[in-house]
Amino acid sequence: MVVKVGIVGLGRLGKIHAENLSKKIYNCELIAATSIVDEELNWAQKELGVKYLYHDFDEMIANDEVDAIFIVSPSSFHPDQVVKALNKNKHVFSEKPLGLSVEDIQEILPVINSSSNKFMLGFMRRFDDSYRYAKEKVDAGEIGDITLIRCYSIDPSDGMKSFVNFAKNSNSGGIFSDMSIHDIDVIRWFLNSEDSGVNRVWSLGNNVAYPVLNDLNELETGAAMLQLTDDKIGMLVAGRNAAHGYHVETEIIGTKGTLRIAATPEKNLVQVMNSSGVVRPTSQNFPERFQQAFMSEEQYFIDAISNDTEIEIKAEDGLYATQVAIALQESYDSNEIINIKGGQ
Amino acid sequence: MVVKVGIVGLGRLGKIHAENLSKKIYNCELIAATSIVDEELNWAQKELGVKYLYHDFDEMIANDEVDAIFIVSPSSFHPDQVVKALNKNKHVFSEKPLGLSVEDIQEILPVINSSSNKFMLGFMRRFDDSYRYAKEKVDAGEIGDITLIRCYSIDPSDGMKSFVNFAKNSNSGGIFSDMSIHDIDVIRWFLNSEDSGVNRVWSLGNNVAYPVLNDLNELETGAAMLQLTDDKIGMLVAGRNAAHGYHVETEIIGTKGTLRIAATPEKNLVQVMNSSGVVRPTSQNFPERFQQAFMSEEQYFIDAISNDTEIEIKAEDGLYATQVAIALQESYDSNEIINIKGGQ
Amino acid sequence: MVVKVGIVGLGRLGKIHAENLSKKIYNCELIAATSIVDEELNWAQKELGVKYLYHDFDEMIANDEVDAIFIVSPSSFHPDQVVKALNKNKHVFSEKPLGLSVEDIQEILPVINSSSNKFMLGFMRRFDDSYRYAKEKVDAGEIGDITLIRCYSIDPSDGMKSFVNFAKNSNSGGIFSDMSIHDIDVIRWFLNSEDSGVNRVWSLGNNVAYPVLNDLNELETGAAMLQLTDDKIGMLVAGRNAAHGYHVETEIIGTKGTLRIAATPEKNLVQVMNSSGVVRPTSQNFPERFQQAFMSEEQYFIDAISNDTEIEIKAEDGLYATQVAIALQESYDSNEIINIKGGQ
Amino acid sequence: MVVKVGIVGLGRLGKIHAENLSKKIYNCELIAATSIVDEELNWAQKELGVKYLYHDFDEMIANDEVDAIFIVSPSSFHPDQVVKALNKNKHVFSEKPLGLSVEDIQEILPVINSSSNKFMLGFMRRFDDSYRYAKEKVDAGEIGDITLIRCYSIDPSDGMKSFVNFAKNSNSGGIFSDMSIHDIDVIRWFLNSEDSGVNRVWSLGNNVAYPVLNDLNELETGAAMLQLTDDKIGMLVAGRNAAHGYHVETEIIGTKGTLRIAATPEKNLVQVMNSSGVVRPTSQNFPERFQQAFMSEEQYFIDAISNDTEIEIKAEDGLYATQVAIALQESYDSNEIINIKGGQ
Repeated sequence: MVVKVGIVGLGRLGKIHAENLSKKIYNCELIAATSIVDEELNWAQKELGVKYLYHDFDEMIANDEVDAIFIVSPSSFHPDQVVKALNKNKHVFSEKPLGLSVEDIQEILPVINSSSNKFMLGFMRRFDDSYRYAKEKVDAGEIGDITLIRCYSIDPSDGMKSFVNFAKNSNSGGIFSDMSIHDIDVIRWFLNSEDSGVNRVWSLGNNVAYPVLNDLNELETGAAMLQLTDDKIGMLVAGRNAAHGYHVETEIIGTKGTLRIAATPEKNLVQVMNSSGVVRPTSQNFPERFQQAFMSEEQYFIDAISNDTEIEIKAEDGLYATQVAIALQESYDSNEIINIKGGQ
Repeated sequence: MVVKVGIVGLGRLGKIHAENLSKKIYNCELIAATSIVDEELNWAQKELGVKYLYHDFDEMIANDEVDAIFIVSPSSFHPDQVVKALNKNKHVFSEKPLGLSVEDIQEILPVINSSSNKFMLGFMRRFDDSYRYAKEKVDAGEIGDITLIRCYSIDPSDGMKSFVNFAKNSNSGGIFSDMSIHDIDVIRWFLNSEDSGVNRVWSLGNNVAYPVLNDLNELETGAAMLQLTDDKIGMLVAGRNAAHGYHVETEIIGTKGTLRIAATPEKNLVQVMNSSGVVRPTSQNFPERFQQAFMSEEQYFIDAISNDTEIEIKAEDGLYATQVAIALQESYDSNEIINIKGGQ
Repeated sequence: MVVKVGIVGLGRLGKIHAENLSKKIYNCELIAATSIVDEELNWAQKELGVKYLYHDFDEMIANDEVDAIFIVSPSSFHPDQVVKALNKNKHVFSEKPLGLSVEDIQEILPVINSSSNKFMLGFMRRFDDSYRYAKEKVDAGEIGDITLIRCYSIDPSDGMKSFVNFAKNSNSGGIFSDMSIHDIDVIRWFLNSEDSGVNRVWSLGNNVAYPVLNDLNELETGAAMLQLTDDKIGMLVAGRNAAHGYHVETEIIGTKGTLRIAATPEKNLVQVMNSSGVVRPTSQNFPERFQQAFMSEEQYFIDAISNDTEIEIKAEDGLYATQVAIALQESYDSNEIINIKGGQ
Repeated sequence: MVVKVGIVGLGRLGKIHAENLSKKIYNCELIAATSIVDEELNWAQKELGVKYLYHDFDEMIANDEVDAIFIVSPSSFHPDQVVKALNKNKHVFSEKPLGLSVEDIQEILPVINSSSNKFMLGFMRRFDDSYRYAKEKVDAGEIGDITLIRCYSIDPSDGMKSFVNFAKNSNSGGIFSDMSIHDIDVIRWFLNSEDSGVNRVWSLGNNVAYPVLNDLNELETGAAMLQLTDDKIGMLVAGRNAAHGYHVETEIIGTKGTLRIAATPEKNLVQVMNSSGVVRPTSQNFPERFQQAFMSEEQYFIDAISNDTEIEIKAEDGLYATQVAIALQESYDSNEIINIKGGQ
């Protein structure tokens, strides 16, 4: 069965999904796209041959030919669009976050969980080959019991100027919601947590190179320590100013060994020896680093529809990730430890 | 335009091509397959939905629906099948080698070169992201002029037993034709050679762990030194017994820097720290190592047909690679330096 | 001028100092040793040719031939022995910590600072070639302004059993005083802090593999986050259970780049490729990892005496390191943020 | 017993030996030095406190206080000075090569071997910690039987100009005698060869960046392939133009694993992440790379005298290394395979 997909949002990430769904995903056809930007719709039509083009999301989901919706719109639209699409009997893939507040997400959980359609949240790291390899090793007990997980999510310096401009006009949700949400999900995934998995958090932050961010209530660098279930420890660094590129790293320390995923974000298998020393070139941005992961998550979602198989990522995963991310921001704002509701 | 493809040969590599062409390549449909093994045809039908199944190559190329042929049959069939398919007005992708002897290849060159159809040889390393990155850097002058190229192609130890069995009944063509042919092409590619690029060669070899190979006239480890055009130097190691996996490495030494591609065959971005030390897991076989390269070469071929663009790899590339590989074997057999015809 | 040295304490670290001072340090002669263990004194006499052997520290410092004292006794003796030796007109090198409490150290600071003799504390990391290289790069501005420093100090698993036995009878001072004190000094050193450099701290810990440590009030793994001067961030991990060896790592994130020192504790320049993958062997213990640093700090101290040059490490460095370490433990005990006295 | 040493030659390497012998070697005193350069003698006197200074080697060896001689003079003087010193009842350490021709060395072998004094040749790589670690692993069978050894010895580019000037006035002996002689010894050492261990060789070379070297009969890059005993394979690269520093690398391929020593010449344990990517700084010259090896070989020689123990490196090791190096040059000059006398 070929799954016919409509997409909403054709920004940077939207274009990646759209192109993959059109050209690289098996049993999938991208037939519809919604955007308020005409250039984006033109691009979808010309480059990808998308048949149905909309300015209005509601019109797209009224199209009976469409089986599934990819939601890649601004975060504030996610809860509403998820509900509407499910109610129109579409399968739904939504980019993170599921919502901007815990309340918003809690409100739509019943709709998602009672729907007979598929729902999936775009925690693509779970589909990255390196993360999957590590998860298998951990689940197989190769590093014993986990004692500490450390996660870095640092955007490249060359995106800093555009971020400052963005932050002048928009609300990123803060660095922890914007950057660390994937890390929170990764921690919960490795620990097989059924709830947030977090008891208490403390966050710090600074703006050393870009003090202008102080006025915008944004952070260049954030960090947090998390007291997890069973006194396991989480450490997070989120940043927007990595000189060497896009640095997403995860370390899992266990009682019998330690795993590091992308300790350095090597772009490929090339080593350059020149007057700088021995150099490994690095991934420069998330599309480059997670190219394979995006394709794998898309294929996973399409296959789950085709084969009617269960999707591993639940709406609750989105709820807990957002709950913790918001607590991290609250801790930074107050410079105090925050207890997570439902934590031990 | 969707290109409709027929494939001949559904062994290990044939299955990889078939699956990619069915599921992962854009603008491509795999509609026909030829094999003498019924199980393989059943697999193609059930798993990939291939419509037309043949025991006979000639029947497949008589099918007018088929636009292009992938030749993944045993090497000795390549020249004949290439000619037949071109004569039936098909575009042709052939796995290496183009032929087992220089004469065989020279005989079919005029057919290939006078055909208006596309022809491409499966030198997939040219499509590997790491090799392409290195090629761009070299072409951009980042390491100055090339002085020496070193290439390793070493198969994993765990394939050794099956190779010994294979060698008892079949002729691999010798380790240099079997393993080093990609390396010869890589050297010519980096040097932008128009002819073989090689003047003189000397080859050595041994069977230390598997002396049984002596009787089979095969080598566990081969090595060669090549005097290239302008006194540049080539060094080759070919092997069948790498304990750590599938080791394909290329080093390019230049006057301003050195590049190494896959100095160690890292499987992914994971680092394991355990009682062994700090471990990088390694690729275990060619399908794993060159997964992306196979897909890229397939897409390149399909796009060349769709868009009628020129294919960078020429039949002559197959001719020169085979010419040098045969000279390497001849040198090993005689334990003397061999001069390459047409060398300076 | 040859400096004549007496040493107190001939345990594991004492023996390292004694052997270096005897055989490897220029302008230095080890002439005296104090221990309550006769075997250790016999070793010093036979292996190192030490002339004067004592059971009593006071007798050793009464020996007028002795110019300088190395204090490698149990930590609780440090303050008293430092004062006594200075009062006997000896130059003094003391292992860390300078004292077990802030008060103990504050009491002896005037004696140290008013003495005309040399005093040095054994923060040997400042003499490790890799740390020195990193410090020079940071001071030269190569990574811009520091935003975050992360330090790991993790002992090898194979010392765990003996630690459990030790902890049953003795007080290590807690993992933060025992293990993180070097990290605290490293942070202060990189930030050129004049005071503790730390405002607030929060510590966590767990005993996953060795729950027996719960009863002993010790930790297998500790972690802490530090709010430093100017909102810079410190992150610490201390542990006793690294499967791969002795893991001391420091990362310095700056606005223009990041430095990592010993991201993996490579033992030498050897790479092993075997069925495990690509393996870098690792340092197994502190004598192996810091062999060069111990010799350099010893030579530095002897040279400072010979040439009457100022010693970079001050008694205050010991005071602040202990102050922070104690706050870390206090935070762990209370599971609350602790404000450091004198912090902003 | 303290060994009293005299040194001849205070050039770059001579100064390293002199300083170590004065300050860092146990049971050793540098009391005499011979040089024709007054500045060098002044340096020895002032910086190292050397008592006896000579312009004439014969005078130095007539000094009865001197127990042992370090020969660090130009290579052509080595055989004569070795014999004279032994005849004056001195222990002798000689830098490589033992002589410029096989005949020269054969002539002095009886003198060396019949002397009751110690003799040692400066193959310092055998004392480098990384090489020793690898040797132990190989001897313990961890990589099975050796099939191939590859050695690189490449000097840094920044020495190129001074080499060109040197070559205009002097004879380096050719790149193989100058650079590869250590590699030949390393191969023989790993294979535990009793004779040269080499049957046939073929050498190539080029001058790509510095064609001026063509006229001087020197090479910027040399390479060779060696057919060793039992068909094992040797591959050598010698060069003078490494952009990234001083590159001495050895790879040992075995039937059960592969070892690489200094695959990249990491200077320390620091990793730099900046706009170039992830950078490991590299050793820039031989004093930096082999600092520890020089000290260990010196201490080994002094200890062998003190304790009257046998020295592992024999004069024959010098003979065979020179024999092969000369054959490599002869092969390059003739562009033909050269058979080594005494090879199988």
